[in-house]
Amino acid sequence: MKLCTYQSPKGPRVGVVEDGRVFDAGFDGPMTDLIRDWPNARAALEKAVSQSDGLRLEDVQLLAPVLRPGKIFAIGLNYADHIAESKLGTPEHQVWFTKAVTSINGPYSPVQIPKISHFVDYEAELVAVIGKGGRHVPAERAAEHIFGYCVGNDVTERLWQHRTPQWSLGKSFDTHAPIGPWITTADAVTDVHNLDLRCSVNGELRQSSNTRHLVFNVFQQVEHLSQAMTLEPGDLIFTGTPGGIGAAMDPRQFLKEGDVVRCEISGLGYIENRFQKEA
Amino acid sequence: MKLCTYQSPKGPRVGVVEDGRVFDAGFDGPMTDLIRDWPNARAALEKAVSQSDGLRLEDVQLLAPVLRPGKIFAIGLNYADHIAESKLGTPEHQVWFTKAVTSINGPYSPVQIPKISHFVDYEAELVAVIGKGGRHVPAERAAEHIFGYCVGNDVTERLWQHRTPQWSLGKSFDTHAPIGPWITTADAVTDVHNLDLRCSVNGELRQSSNTRHLVFNVFQQVEHLSQAMTLEPGDLIFTGTPGGIGAAMDPRQFLKEGDVVRCEISGLGYIENRFQKEA
Repeated sequence: MKLCTYQSPKGPRVGVVEDGRVFDAGFDGPMTDLIRDWPNARAALEKAVSQSDGLRLEDVQLLAPVLRPGKIFAIGLNYADHIAESKLGTPEHQVWFTKAVTSINGPYSPVQIPKISHFVDYEAELVAVIGKGGRHVPAERAAEHIFGYCVGNDVTERLWQHRTPQWSLGKSFDTHAPIGPWITTADAVTDVHNLDLRCSVNGELRQSSNTRHLVFNVFQQVEHLSQAMTLEPGDLIFTGTPGGIGAAMDPRQFLKEGDVVRCEISGLGYIENRFQKEA
Repeated sequence: MKLCTYQSPKGPRVGVVEDGRVFDAGFDGPMTDLIRDWPNARAALEKAVSQSDGLRLEDVQLLAPVLRPGKIFAIGLNYADHIAESKLGTPEHQVWFTKAVTSINGPYSPVQIPKISHFVDYEAELVAVIGKGGRHVPAERAAEHIFGYCVGNDVTERLWQHRTPQWSLGKSFDTHAPIGPWITTADAVTDVHNLDLRCSVNGELRQSSNTRHLVFNVFQQVEHLSQAMTLEPGDLIFTGTPGGIGAAMDPRQFLKEGDVVRCEISGLGYIENRFQKEA
């Protein structure tokens, strides 16, 4: 099943995406509440869909499927080719940073090139959405705690990322976490560790890899994070980006006004964002 | 005015602390909603207090005044003596990391020594609570955006903090952000940059400084963070810890089962947490 959040006259609503149409899920509340209530909500939701004609997908404005997660954690240096281009060794332990929840952005919404610094770069990533919360989730049971997956762009302001040792500020600018276009529930993803992932800038392919090249796989990531903290429904995990970032090109390339970045993962759809100067 | 969140038979409620008593604020919703609605809520709240007898403070269980902030940012290396004991230079730019919102804990609640690692340390800090949200807030107007202040302990698991270059995971264990005992509204704090701050372990003084020794003051911190992101009502800013952490003692001292850590700031009260092994 594919679940989106879309803009309705009444405000953001959860919808089901099927055959090019969006059906109101008949659920009052944000995606995080739906995920929390999933065991009960699923049947009601299937009924709501069967009783409605829905809207044409192209007539609907899709928003970030999770508008306000509790936490966003993102792993660094998690594809071999990205580690090589960063001129670093493979980390012994998972390297985690965060993106501020206020950086969440829609799948087709503009992304800001900040006023104060403009070394803006893309990082296409598979994003896992936590379903059932928990702590101390072993890798072999992690799949039970993942609600679904979507595409994300871990947009990064490289100057702010690197001018102190801590990356989180440079990862947390407003609009710098576009996700979507919808959540594909985990039961509809045959093998999350065999998905093609691509990123292009103005149609030029920049990143192309497959999630089988993850250094620490998604389930190991859930295990590791949950050793420290309780994961909650709707928490987002950005699972790492492959090689091909603009900062590692020769000469370095950063995103400019009007650039369009498209991130795509097989079976999960794509997000496409135009970059524009912060007003 | 002093605003707390306390446990009532109906669940957590916002209360006003006055003369050793807690008065129900007559507000349905969490502290973040009250802060958002402050211009309207304040008068109603003063009325609610005048019409009630309140409860004795010692009969009430205080919870974290903000149970679920949107963001928690914390600045590193922000007192000269702490920079010296960390054997690092004064940073040119503000160094920021995050604490997960699930690490929030009450002012007198137990703090976990994690199962998986037990190099747990204290860091007493002044915590600023954002009132009116905003982006690009200049330092000279930052005071208008601060709702109030409380005491915080930026509890840290040093092994997880330092075994990768990114500190956020080691700062984010469940229960590792005790705050309180209440929020003192900014209008009741004469000079936030002249407050004595102390931390003791089992009655032994470990940290003793004054907020006038902050490298980057609170208003500069708000300016810097808001250059990157929109600050929102209830967001928390941990403003840095002075020298005296356990990890810098010779020999290094970490917190053990049964240790009691008390963090106190003049005029803001104290928080006191017993450390105990995670069950």
